[in-house]
Amino acid sequence: MNLVLLFQEDFIGDSNLVRLKGHRLAHVRDVLRASAGDRLCVGIAGGNVGEGTIKLLDDDALEMEIKADSHPPHPLPVTVILALPRPKVLRRVIASITIMGVKSIILINAYRVEKSYWKSPFLEKAEMEKQIILGLEQARDTIFPEIMLRPLFKPFVDDELPGIIKGSLPFVAHPAAIEACPFDVKQPVTIAVGPEAGFIPYEIEKLIGCGFKPVRMGDRILTVETAIPALLSRFL
Amino acid sequence: MNLVLLFQEDFIGDSNLVRLKGHRLAHVRDVLRASAGDRLCVGIAGGNVGEGTIKLLDDDALEMEIKADSHPPHPLPVTVILALPRPKVLRRVIASITIMGVKSIILINAYRVEKSYWKSPFLEKAEMEKQIILGLEQARDTIFPEIMLRPLFKPFVDDELPGIIKGSLPFVAHPAAIEACPFDVKQPVTIAVGPEAGFIPYEIEKLIGCGFKPVRMGDRILTVETAIPALLSRFL
Repeated sequence: MNLVLLFQEDFIGDSNLVRLKGHRLAHVRDVLRASAGDRLCVGIAGGNVGEGTIKLLDDDALEMEIKADSHPPHPLPVTVILALPRPKVLRRVIASITIMGVKSIILINAYRVEKSYWKSPFLEKAEMEKQIILGLEQARDTIFPEIMLRPLFKPFVDDELPGIIKGSLPFVAHPAAIEACPFDVKQPVTIAVGPEAGFIPYEIEKLIGCGFKPVRMGDRILTVETAIPALLSRFL
Repeated sequence: MNLVLLFQEDFIGDSNLVRLKGHRLAHVRDVLRASAGDRLCVGIAGGNVGEGTIKLLDDDALEMEIKADSHPPHPLPVTVILALPRPKVLRRVIASITIMGVKSIILINAYRVEKSYWKSPFLEKAEMEKQIILGLEQARDTIFPEIMLRPLFKPFVDDELPGIIKGSLPFVAHPAAIEACPFDVKQPVTIAVGPEAGFIPYEIEKLIGCGFKPVRMGDRILTVETAIPALLSRFL
């Protein structure tokens, strides 16, 4: 936790004082081992970042006076379209995509996505928000990414995808691609990543038909967890 | 598992036949759902990659005829120097560094590395090899990375590091750096990555004194698990 993320309900009335309990109190007390007078990096969910000065810290609560007048880091202008991974991987990937600064994530179906993944409790909004908050706290960011679920591949690609990629360079990560994923592109990007076993040829063709260019990341087949930061790194 | 990794003891006598049990048998039978006559991508530990034709597959064993006459993918000419992460992260990071094609990993101490991490059972050779094998099977590679443990920071930097970085461009990942990590460098690289809470100023200065250039990866503070593939991606 490099930033303590604050929500409106943390503020005491209309003041600039917050009162925190639970995991944030525990972290500041036990991991950061902070004490009254110390200053911590804070951010207001959806808003500015700044500093909190600890006024009170005991077993019950952490109280801080907040001054948050700086902007959070710029969003990474990349939309990630990801074939729904298995639940354990999904959790880590949502956190890592958030850490890298992406603000738009679309979880889609693909032939090699197990149907049961769509019933995972980790897809519930509250569960995904937990991972997003971990990511924002790590990255010193405050802007939540938007996550859309699209459990039908074909209607998504036919009806929605052309609008989504408009104004961006669309790439699909594909180990069999000839071209390498480019570096340092100076415009928004949409990047599609398949399931662990890859998109099937029909899916790759549908994406190419929609304007996506297949790109590779080196000579090896990466896992989703490795591929996501590797791909996003090209556009940082 | 995109490649079935084979060891000398898997071969039946001097033949080109292998007999497998355990997790490789289970994977081929239950995940790949292969059957006699199917061909699988195989690789011989430390050697060539090729194809195995299934001759027999039942509950007891998998027998394949092996033809392995292609080279594994080129090593990534990057040495990773990593402050020892906590055990759970270490496991995943060893796998992901292997997946990216790195062949030289040095786990070092740093001020913010918890002493207990050096006593973790995951540092035992057999445990690390499990993660390496997972990484090689994923990446369709056969060449094991070498892992060195250096639990004393100063003597390592003073006595060994100058020899290790000779002939390479040495970078240290540092969120406070001004320069971005470069793209697409055409020579070997050494990349140093600190603990979750970062190297302390003394450590950064020692590394700079040794010739390392501090570089940043975007505006956010990445986790070790995110930083490693992101950094390596710049040199793929």
